[in-house]
Amino acid sequence: MSVMTADQVAVVGAAGYGGAVAAAILHRHPSLELTAVTARSDAGRRHDALYPRYRVPLVLEEFDADAVAGRAQSAIVAYPHGAAAPAVRALRERGLRVVDLSADFRLGRERYERWYQAHAAPELLDDAVYGLTEVHRDEIRGAGLVAAPGCYPTAALLALWPLRDLIQDVVVDAKSGVSGAGREATETTHFVSVTENIQAYKVEGHRHAAELEQELNGASFTFVPHLIPVEQGLLASCYVTADLRGRDPLELFREAYDDEPFVELTGEPPGTDDVRETNRCRVHVKVVEERVIVLSVIDNLWKGAAGQAVQDLNLMLGLPETEGLE
Amino acid sequence: MSVMTADQVAVVGAAGYGGAVAAAILHRHPSLELTAVTARSDAGRRHDALYPRYRVPLVLEEFDADAVAGRAQSAIVAYPHGAAAPAVRALRERGLRVVDLSADFRLGRERYERWYQAHAAPELLDDAVYGLTEVHRDEIRGAGLVAAPGCYPTAALLALWPLRDLIQDVVVDAKSGVSGAGREATETTHFVSVTENIQAYKVEGHRHAAELEQELNGASFTFVPHLIPVEQGLLASCYVTADLRGRDPLELFREAYDDEPFVELTGEPPGTDDVRETNRCRVHVKVVEERVIVLSVIDNLWKGAAGQAVQDLNLMLGLPETEGLE
Amino acid sequence: MSVMTADQVAVVGAAGYGGAVAAAILHRHPSLELTAVTARSDAGRRHDALYPRYRVPLVLEEFDADAVAGRAQSAIVAYPHGAAAPAVRALRERGLRVVDLSADFRLGRERYERWYQAHAAPELLDDAVYGLTEVHRDEIRGAGLVAAPGCYPTAALLALWPLRDLIQDVVVDAKSGVSGAGREATETTHFVSVTENIQAYKVEGHRHAAELEQELNGASFTFVPHLIPVEQGLLASCYVTADLRGRDPLELFREAYDDEPFVELTGEPPGTDDVRETNRCRVHVKVVEERVIVLSVIDNLWKGAAGQAVQDLNLMLGLPETEGLE
Amino acid sequence: MSVMTADQVAVVGAAGYGGAVAAAILHRHPSLELTAVTARSDAGRRHDALYPRYRVPLVLEEFDADAVAGRAQSAIVAYPHGAAAPAVRALRERGLRVVDLSADFRLGRERYERWYQAHAAPELLDDAVYGLTEVHRDEIRGAGLVAAPGCYPTAALLALWPLRDLIQDVVVDAKSGVSGAGREATETTHFVSVTENIQAYKVEGHRHAAELEQELNGASFTFVPHLIPVEQGLLASCYVTADLRGRDPLELFREAYDDEPFVELTGEPPGTDDVRETNRCRVHVKVVEERVIVLSVIDNLWKGAAGQAVQDLNLMLGLPETEGLE
Repeated sequence: MSVMTADQVAVVGAAGYGGAVAAAILHRHPSLELTAVTARSDAGRRHDALYPRYRVPLVLEEFDADAVAGRAQSAIVAYPHGAAAPAVRALRERGLRVVDLSADFRLGRERYERWYQAHAAPELLDDAVYGLTEVHRDEIRGAGLVAAPGCYPTAALLALWPLRDLIQDVVVDAKSGVSGAGREATETTHFVSVTENIQAYKVEGHRHAAELEQELNGASFTFVPHLIPVEQGLLASCYVTADLRGRDPLELFREAYDDEPFVELTGEPPGTDDVRETNRCRVHVKVVEERVIVLSVIDNLWKGAAGQAVQDLNLMLGLPETEGLE
Repeated sequence: MSVMTADQVAVVGAAGYGGAVAAAILHRHPSLELTAVTARSDAGRRHDALYPRYRVPLVLEEFDADAVAGRAQSAIVAYPHGAAAPAVRALRERGLRVVDLSADFRLGRERYERWYQAHAAPELLDDAVYGLTEVHRDEIRGAGLVAAPGCYPTAALLALWPLRDLIQDVVVDAKSGVSGAGREATETTHFVSVTENIQAYKVEGHRHAAELEQELNGASFTFVPHLIPVEQGLLASCYVTADLRGRDPLELFREAYDDEPFVELTGEPPGTDDVRETNRCRVHVKVVEERVIVLSVIDNLWKGAAGQAVQDLNLMLGLPETEGLE
Repeated sequence: MSVMTADQVAVVGAAGYGGAVAAAILHRHPSLELTAVTARSDAGRRHDALYPRYRVPLVLEEFDADAVAGRAQSAIVAYPHGAAAPAVRALRERGLRVVDLSADFRLGRERYERWYQAHAAPELLDDAVYGLTEVHRDEIRGAGLVAAPGCYPTAALLALWPLRDLIQDVVVDAKSGVSGAGREATETTHFVSVTENIQAYKVEGHRHAAELEQELNGASFTFVPHLIPVEQGLLASCYVTADLRGRDPLELFREAYDDEPFVELTGEPPGTDDVRETNRCRVHVKVVEERVIVLSVIDNLWKGAAGQAVQDLNLMLGLPETEGLE
Repeated sequence: MSVMTADQVAVVGAAGYGGAVAAAILHRHPSLELTAVTARSDAGRRHDALYPRYRVPLVLEEFDADAVAGRAQSAIVAYPHGAAAPAVRALRERGLRVVDLSADFRLGRERYERWYQAHAAPELLDDAVYGLTEVHRDEIRGAGLVAAPGCYPTAALLALWPLRDLIQDVVVDAKSGVSGAGREATETTHFVSVTENIQAYKVEGHRHAAELEQELNGASFTFVPHLIPVEQGLLASCYVTADLRGRDPLELFREAYDDEPFVELTGEPPGTDDVRETNRCRVHVKVVEERVIVLSVIDNLWKGAAGQAVQDLNLMLGLPETEGLE
């Protein structure tokens, strides 16, 4: 029988792609014990039957907040937005620390309700921290509820953060692999639709723009996502018009990221394959004539979802930030 | 107003992959006029909105046998098995010649009901011809109802036909692109499931084996299909144990196929890409020690479905067999 | 023996991807006869051994200007830049009309020599026409030498042309399939490098920018190309800052393209798969806040190379512009 | 300065795909220290510049046996066959334990010289052990030189071993991802050649057949490899005719593999994606009529090369067999 300690973790919603990676990382985590994985339609199946290569030998259970609370002191919730808030509330009420992968706790209430829907647990918003670790590290430490950023905002914000006070305008042309669209089988995710194709979507407004809007503090930007025939990987190509005031942009990036364990500046344009199945973000900065071009790659399921969630959780629990992620 | 002639054709079920290719071929066919395309859930949409590159500028209609009969003298039906038989009957009753892409008219009744289900239009079976053109050409000419063979049997039977009287045993290891699984979005057809993967399925018995069983006249065979990360393309690798009685297998293939417009013998193992979006079957024959290895490639949507259906239709209507297919 | 008429065409450099597609299109062209295909290292091989699905049953020959001139009155030259100019000169001296796929005749001399190298046939530049058909149609008619535009400029210029007098600044984020990198086997084109990857390249200056520079007449732009795991297909995502002076951009696009046979305005963001193996360019225009977003897709080997070359050739020879391209 | 202990390892030829994975595994190995990586044409570059996601922060050196011997007590050699033997000899002469990934030490001399070429270090053959761990574990323990099996033989032999005494005849239809063809850029490995394609090759005799021949002890078999559009992954579909003498084949597999840490029997046909980037082999056994069908998947760079090499090395050094491989 496992004694109750502060290092037991559950993944709620571990049958989707993001939750599955979270389970995989936590199962191998040296300081944490993955004690429960839940799923909705796949409850009863073993996680490693669904995801053999992740090798998590646990049975997916129906979600029951009391059962989870009896076996874990923290949880990663990987439900779709809307469905996440009630589950998060149930776990917070039972005292668990929670990292939520959905959009439900990323935005202020007004902005959330403008882009999404009525909020199901607004009372939790005040204590929720936006979990872009490199930016909000101090708030994340000790937080009880952290909202892991969306995959697009993670790549774009890491590309833009060092310039944030200088940006006049930015175009973010982002390209994501198909796992970012989730495990649901749709016309969009059908192999025949995706292969030999690249296509922009939601040109008039992808919800992830709300996070850019909030975190960039009003800088003018255009954000267009594209779907590419790749399983895991996301590239944000950012075209920045900035008033540099004589600053060398590369120097700003070095100052911002030289001590960051998961952000690397590269001399060449990075490929998404460089960071596949890692928690890294690789960033390349180049000034071409009047424009600062910043290219930023992540694995959308790792640094763009589950990896960052574990990075957040490590901080919340006082563990070394990189543990389980190397 | 278009005058009623014998060259008007409809495609019933033109929203699926096979039916869509049939519509594309017929729309460009020099002697036939595509006058109607029908669909079930996509009725009301334009075909070229669904399949822009096929450039068929017709609106998909609900299927109505009378309406179709008012505008066409023949039809290609591309419904799933079970659903096809009633539609075929309705069209036959109205005097149309029909090529059916489903399994409903490929097999004798007993065999059909063993592998599939109770037959919905058994009275039509006697007049139905199995539309493997190279084998049943004479019967197809003038037939009123032709059943286009399955994609796997097409490739396998063209690989085996010249040896049919000599075969003692054969292993057919077949690999198909994802369009063969149809347009339905499922876990199996999700890009993330397919990419970076290859997997056998239905090892104990894929229904297409019934066609091999019927056409090979009792030769012993093992048939295992595999799904590969390819959009269109099918390779049947056939390993034949035969009593050659001193015959040169290559000579048998030359005799069988030298005059065939769509079958080519190759000196090197063919790739599926060689025949993509063509009605060709490329066949490579090699004797290695005691075994005859025959490799056969087709485009599963062309020679494996819609292309062969048009080849059949050309024959049924007394047109040159290759018309519209080059 | 074929009588010498004005409708015989050769493809010089038919073993590369662009030249091979040119040969395929011309071989099926109703008014032109493909009489010769040449290649450098592949001379002696049949074209359809190299490219089975294109079905061009000709033997690749060593290039000999006299031999070509004896059998053709026009030619498409598909050599790399630098190598093209001398071949073009030799053919022009023998009276052939030429469409050149390389960069050698796309730019003014000064600009060419700045971006490429010393020009090998500068005396031909004055008569060369930039073959973006929709823009330079009148000059192309009757021209003796036309330079088919680069694939990136084709997509980008068609996206920008209707706005050209209003553009203040534009970001062109372009994504190309691997065939655009040519047939040479390199680390860049290795399957393992390309699959599961997307990467920007030549951020500081791809040579195709020279064409944008020339044709956009000094408008400020940033152009960054990306390589994607696609065989054929190119998307230019253009982010335009314009002084619209009350004009409706969509109206400008309608005026420019409503009569164009190969340019289509779409209500949804187009995918490269929509235009695969067609000569079409699909363009989607959307104003989002202050910015005009224009998305433009082509098949890089068709409208971006060989298809457009045939479109040019049709015009040069007084044939219907779309012949052989539908 | 690192003290000389028995746990220092070098990878000779770490710029190729197999050697690179070996370096990646060893760099994270808890009991071994990767002290040197060598390369031929890439010497001077950092390993993590070539393979960013493997994160091996070492500079590739020219191979110098003395230098390697000064820093390592064992080595994995990942040179092409022919080039490997002299390097292995040089390292063995300096007392290093060696696992060789090439074919040079997998076969008896006569067989090697029949399939390959004159052997460059025949005096080492007597002590070399064929490193299929599950089969030759006892000989590997304490060996000085182990030859890691080819990728195809690994998958096929693990599929066939439990039946070896019963096999009358077997067809091995094998499918491999492109990394198995190595890092060299060729027409065969060009993205455009591979994507949307599947093709058999070396139908008359792939050299890996020599290993099957040797290890299967004369059982009659046919082996045909196929190239598929996958980066890493290999499936061997084996069709066995056996004299079962009343034995249940599944039982034989259970006896053989129930205690094996890296071989798993599955209830469903396994996909290569199940084992991607793991050292696992998944095996599915099904009797269909007279035939035993065995499907076996591995990652060709892991269990089919570098992973198995580390498994061998663990045994040779008396470490737990699975160390560094979970």
